[in-house]
Amino acid sequence: MDPTVDSVTERELIARIRGQLPPAPDWLLVGIGDDAAVVEPERNRVEVLTVDALVEGIHFDRAFVPPDAIGHRALAVNLSDLAAMGATPRLALLSMALPAALPLADFDAISAGFVALAARHRLHVVGGNLTRSPGPMMIDVTVMGTVKRRQALTRRGARPGDDLYVSGTIGAATAGLRMLQESRKLATNEDLKRSTTEDTGDSEGQSRYEKDFSSASTVSSVVESAIAESCVERYLRPEPRLRLGIHLSRNRAASACMDLSDGLADGFRQIADASGVGMTVDADALPIDPGARAFFEARGQDPVVEALGGGDDYELLIAVHPRTQRRLSAAMRRGDVLLTRIGRCTAERGITLRTAGGASTNAGALPDGFSHFR
Amino acid sequence: MDPTVDSVTERELIARIRGQLPPAPDWLLVGIGDDAAVVEPERNRVEVLTVDALVEGIHFDRAFVPPDAIGHRALAVNLSDLAAMGATPRLALLSMALPAALPLADFDAISAGFVALAARHRLHVVGGNLTRSPGPMMIDVTVMGTVKRRQALTRRGARPGDDLYVSGTIGAATAGLRMLQESRKLATNEDLKRSTTEDTGDSEGQSRYEKDFSSASTVSSVVESAIAESCVERYLRPEPRLRLGIHLSRNRAASACMDLSDGLADGFRQIADASGVGMTVDADALPIDPGARAFFEARGQDPVVEALGGGDDYELLIAVHPRTQRRLSAAMRRGDVLLTRIGRCTAERGITLRTAGGASTNAGALPDGFSHFR
Repeated sequence: MDPTVDSVTERELIARIRGQLPPAPDWLLVGIGDDAAVVEPERNRVEVLTVDALVEGIHFDRAFVPPDAIGHRALAVNLSDLAAMGATPRLALLSMALPAALPLADFDAISAGFVALAARHRLHVVGGNLTRSPGPMMIDVTVMGTVKRRQALTRRGARPGDDLYVSGTIGAATAGLRMLQESRKLATNEDLKRSTTEDTGDSEGQSRYEKDFSSASTVSSVVESAIAESCVERYLRPEPRLRLGIHLSRNRAASACMDLSDGLADGFRQIADASGVGMTVDADALPIDPGARAFFEARGQDPVVEALGGGDDYELLIAVHPRTQRRLSAAMRRGDVLLTRIGRCTAERGITLRTAGGASTNAGALPDGFSHFR
Repeated sequence: MDPTVDSVTERELIARIRGQLPPAPDWLLVGIGDDAAVVEPERNRVEVLTVDALVEGIHFDRAFVPPDAIGHRALAVNLSDLAAMGATPRLALLSMALPAALPLADFDAISAGFVALAARHRLHVVGGNLTRSPGPMMIDVTVMGTVKRRQALTRRGARPGDDLYVSGTIGAATAGLRMLQESRKLATNEDLKRSTTEDTGDSEGQSRYEKDFSSASTVSSVVESAIAESCVERYLRPEPRLRLGIHLSRNRAASACMDLSDGLADGFRQIADASGVGMTVDADALPIDPGARAFFEARGQDPVVEALGGGDDYELLIAVHPRTQRRLSAAMRRGDVLLTRIGRCTAERGITLRTAGGASTNAGALPDGFSHFR
């Protein structure tokens, strides 16, 4: 029986995370282990702060999200918010509520996924909190980044006539999630078949987790093709567009920017509302991931609808004044990601989606973004 | 049927919190409603950051903790960490995972409790996150305060010969929690008796919450005496020792400081370990709350053991060099709280508790502080 998190002290769990961290930067005056962290602010910069939580059963399913990906995603969703503001990441606080039966090896892998992404973006973990959860696992992450004063990108600067761009491709993460869910069902059915012939006889929490994570490997063997794997990877380990955000902020290419954590349709509404503009979006221009398009079409689903509503693409939606188009191209090259023009801001409020047939839909018909409540 | 949080959108829930907030301070450049908050750092100060979570079923029981107290405590536990560092509170990020059946009125009361305490300490809520929880409610709060460079109080500066002080009284919160638990049992028994004669017929989640909070009022009628009420209040709405911490930091009266969120015994160990000292503690000098002492004695429990192990006193444990004793008195007057000398730091490692009979106990025999894991 593998050791679980409740077989060691809170202090030892903290020590296990600390053991994975690089040496503390010189601006960190007091780090993990005191009542709070003490930090020297960065000169001539303003601070960008955000918090985001991943809740088991709402944002991830341990049956098919391996522990390192849980750690990666918990940080990535926050870094994506910094990217949308044009900020350079600086520090994070990691707060976890853990089921007592979580295997220690999974705890280590969750922190490893978190710490690896943090290291890639030179973000330092300065503190956190660990507690038990009587229910689902929850990971709450607060990050702080910095940006030059007056260079923070917001949602509220878009003007009529501005072009709308989206980074990378959309729809892949949603397709990846569906692939994992479908494979999981297959795997569960196989497990069921097997369990009628053998009796494993273990019903404890820990064994359940082990089974969960071992079916995760069954899942990856089911999801075979390279295309499917790339969609699954987009869902499991999204790459926040930090380089792009930083360059957009530095050369003032964007009039408004936000990340697509709650889907593209939600992004349209948020920028339109905050900036007081309307939008016309060209459905055929949407850079839908080819693998995702094939996946949706094979199931008789409309790729445009799925890609608009899907909530796990951590791409950026950007409004650009026509005169700053050249700056945008420079930011795109330096940000190392393709940008696609997908529409334009209008003086008339309301969001219109133009499709090939010339038909157009108003905002009410757009699929909702990912919403936690109603 | 009262409306629940899942009958409105996430946006509306955020709007309800915003409606309770005072006008934004001028250092807040971008507030709630964008991907992240943007903040102008304070000049000539360093920043103090901490995060702490309250998890339903681990840190509070909705059966007897009213919603405003949940909000109050979620912030108070964090402010207590700032107090222990000598920091002045500046901003908070509030992240909540909410069961779908939580009544909207309770949501409003939780935020009201949070916002009221924030306003008293001029702390501004700059952002947060709301999500559904498929299990218990969780409230995760990140706070930032500021302090002058080199004036942050840490756990690591105590030296042999330093006196040990504790602020206020201890044991009251633990006694208050036990009183609430006992009254709750009484109330539940009465409910059971009643339910054999009337059939309420409601078994949905929402009704359960309503019942929970209405039994909370039954509880307060059971807990009648003024002494009991003061213990219960100490548990429900602890007052972080911010004024004391700030004055200790300003006049450099303390060589080490920490808050007693995990109990006094844990405090001894943490400061001793971080500073590399031992301690001798005088059990008879401990400022045990008289109501708590009476409560424990009436149940045949040792007030010293209970007060040492109890984890909800948000008092400060302070080490003081004998030469800075006068500064300590000044900080005590300005901090508006009594400080009691309870022991001394020693060169010899190990923690010794001296009792009236002359018997002494080593650290191994001290009760554990509140630990979330083993």
